[in-house]
Amino acid sequence: MTPASSTSYTDAARLVLQRCDQLGSYSEEPDRRTRRYGTEAMRQTNEAVKGWMLAAGMQPRQDAIGNLVARYEAATPDAKTLVLGSHLDTVRDAGKYDGPLGVLVALACVERLAARGQRPPFAVELVAFADEEGLRFHTAYLGSSAFTGVLPHEALDQTDEDGVTLREAIRAFGGDPEAAVASGRQRDDLLGYCEVHIEQGPLLDANDLPIGVVDGIQGQTRAALTITGVAGHAGTVPMDLRHDALSAAAEFVAAVEQRARNTPNLVATVGQMKVEPGASNVIPGRVALSLDVRHLDNPAREAAVADLRAQAEDIAQRRGVSLEWQLVSDQPSIECSPRLTMLQGDVVAAAGHTVAIVSSGAGHDAVMMAALTDIAMFFVRCKGGVSHSPAESVAVEDVAVAVEVLERFILLLASGGDAA
Amino acid sequence: MTPASSTSYTDAARLVLQRCDQLGSYSEEPDRRTRRYGTEAMRQTNEAVKGWMLAAGMQPRQDAIGNLVARYEAATPDAKTLVLGSHLDTVRDAGKYDGPLGVLVALACVERLAARGQRPPFAVELVAFADEEGLRFHTAYLGSSAFTGVLPHEALDQTDEDGVTLREAIRAFGGDPEAAVASGRQRDDLLGYCEVHIEQGPLLDANDLPIGVVDGIQGQTRAALTITGVAGHAGTVPMDLRHDALSAAAEFVAAVEQRARNTPNLVATVGQMKVEPGASNVIPGRVALSLDVRHLDNPAREAAVADLRAQAEDIAQRRGVSLEWQLVSDQPSIECSPRLTMLQGDVVAAAGHTVAIVSSGAGHDAVMMAALTDIAMFFVRCKGGVSHSPAESVAVEDVAVAVEVLERFILLLASGGDAA
Repeated sequence: MTPASSTSYTDAARLVLQRCDQLGSYSEEPDRRTRRYGTEAMRQTNEAVKGWMLAAGMQPRQDAIGNLVARYEAATPDAKTLVLGSHLDTVRDAGKYDGPLGVLVALACVERLAARGQRPPFAVELVAFADEEGLRFHTAYLGSSAFTGVLPHEALDQTDEDGVTLREAIRAFGGDPEAAVASGRQRDDLLGYCEVHIEQGPLLDANDLPIGVVDGIQGQTRAALTITGVAGHAGTVPMDLRHDALSAAAEFVAAVEQRARNTPNLVATVGQMKVEPGASNVIPGRVALSLDVRHLDNPAREAAVADLRAQAEDIAQRRGVSLEWQLVSDQPSIECSPRLTMLQGDVVAAAGHTVAIVSSGAGHDAVMMAALTDIAMFFVRCKGGVSHSPAESVAVEDVAVAVEVLERFILLLASGGDAA
Repeated sequence: MTPASSTSYTDAARLVLQRCDQLGSYSEEPDRRTRRYGTEAMRQTNEAVKGWMLAAGMQPRQDAIGNLVARYEAATPDAKTLVLGSHLDTVRDAGKYDGPLGVLVALACVERLAARGQRPPFAVELVAFADEEGLRFHTAYLGSSAFTGVLPHEALDQTDEDGVTLREAIRAFGGDPEAAVASGRQRDDLLGYCEVHIEQGPLLDANDLPIGVVDGIQGQTRAALTITGVAGHAGTVPMDLRHDALSAAAEFVAAVEQRARNTPNLVATVGQMKVEPGASNVIPGRVALSLDVRHLDNPAREAAVADLRAQAEDIAQRRGVSLEWQLVSDQPSIECSPRLTMLQGDVVAAAGHTVAIVSSGAGHDAVMMAALTDIAMFFVRCKGGVSHSPAESVAVEDVAVAVEVLERFILLLASGGDAA
């Protein structure tokens, strides 16, 4: 099997972007784009996508939590299944592409197969997850954790800001809370999961590349630090008698940056800092700050965190301030399937592009899917690496490349893994 | 003339502290000590002090803005005048000693002169300023600037948080707004101004000294800096593509500390820092911070500020972030009278204490009085250097020393300046 001409990839990409625009108009808020799980905006979105799935000859259904699932069946019964997908919910004040692009690029590939009457020797199962961002219940991956059978029963008692429980929200969205926690998808027939997503980072744009092959999703350690020194009068306490919590915090921020700069592919960030009492004429007595450390290699991440903690303790001791270090979360990295990654590289090269291997610093539904099957991801260049913002932007040419490489990937798998 | 026995200094000190307790009970707020200009709490305070002044044989009056002024006349008419004083208003959630201690130590000295029927060859004019902290109208020194004739007419239109103008507040406090801006005290008869105040710093406590002689009030430069970088995803933007506003700010905080540590007697403080957007998984795009630089020597302060500004610009340029530097205020230092400072050293030594010369990092009514006459200040040790807090604490023994040295200072001046 061979793909169709590149002109039609552009046509498909234009349709993908038109559909992103349409879904982008569904929002809970009049002045910005916000689609939380189970809202009317999500219902409109699922309705629209369901319509396109039906038109492509699939039979979409909403599963127990509200994920849209639609299959393009194989030529033969008892065939294996390749899952494609991404999510349809958004952050608050979102862009149009984080999530929907992956669903719609996959849908475009199915439409192209269907238009040609082409049926691979495996089913293609398209999943549009109902909650990845976790905006409403402050827990990410509600959709994919229900799909993979790892949503815990106690999650049903979580409440949104209006006091509505997840249980109630699932029912209101037409789902079945007990089934959502009890029934993950069976794994025996799965070939793998492949997700297309905007990069949400600047690497592709900086290197002028339309597409990237993801080798894994970085592990992440989050910690909350509190440094307590001694507040005092900015005019009367000489420098050598100070225990300035902000000076200690600043030294730590520099250490975080230095450690990450000296370790290939490590990223480390202090994103939050609160200074108390916070008056211009008072020496800071207390600083609370966040630390976020990510790396694809778990031992490298763990070593960096341990080193930064030791440095923080050293800074505190030298300065006569106290340090409280609270571990907030510690997620190991998720490796993409080396077998699928190799095939992805082959199809990117076959499409005439440089094969760029990138790690994902952000989480994706693929993280949850990794518990069920082999995972793979394509990243699409987004302008300036900007995401989680209405300024999210993708080029039609790059979306055309995404349609092409995902289609080539399906066809290469269909051919048994040889170069197409 | 020679002072009385040290036992009676202790008795006087006990009375001073009892009176501080009593004034400390006058507050606008039930759970904390707050006395803003012109409030009922200030009226109660002025009434109590007025009563003690009357009992000491003085004729107290409230001037046009509400400062309490009471004279202990000289033996002869047409004598010169020594002014003693401090303020009776407080910050929010204040201690009992910042301000009142100076008024009551001076009053104690007048009471001791009166009890002995002792009259120096100059009048002693005791002034209890009605506003030094500036809590109500956000302008410090309202009392002493009216007393010295530098309160500008437009200040009368300033409003408090309830929309009450200073003009209305002066009238409600029994004063005369037009007179408050028009009539400063004449200067021809003045010998000088001497103020006793808690140190508000840790130097005396750290060196185990009860009293300090102030050589001047440090000049102060305040600036507001805004550093604008590029916000981004903490997981997806590699270190070498970041323009992290907080990392730039941290480098500046370190530079501020380093510059002050390397310059004798310079203090420099970043007391405020606001990080935006302030999420643990977002690289900071914007940081606003304050800078406060103080030194007794104006050129030393100006050089430090210029150097820090150059360093901030260098940091911004190296990191590809933008810097906005806004000068908030620039106050030159105020020198105490070398003649009076020398006499103060003599009386501290005569009382058997080490002569510690300290600079004031905080502002005082003496700053305003310097426009009218020679100024002098004694600092009284306060526990841990803590001020502007209910934890303010002074020892009765140290207050006894303050009464003794101020009395000796008056008597030394009375004797013509020779050692008593």
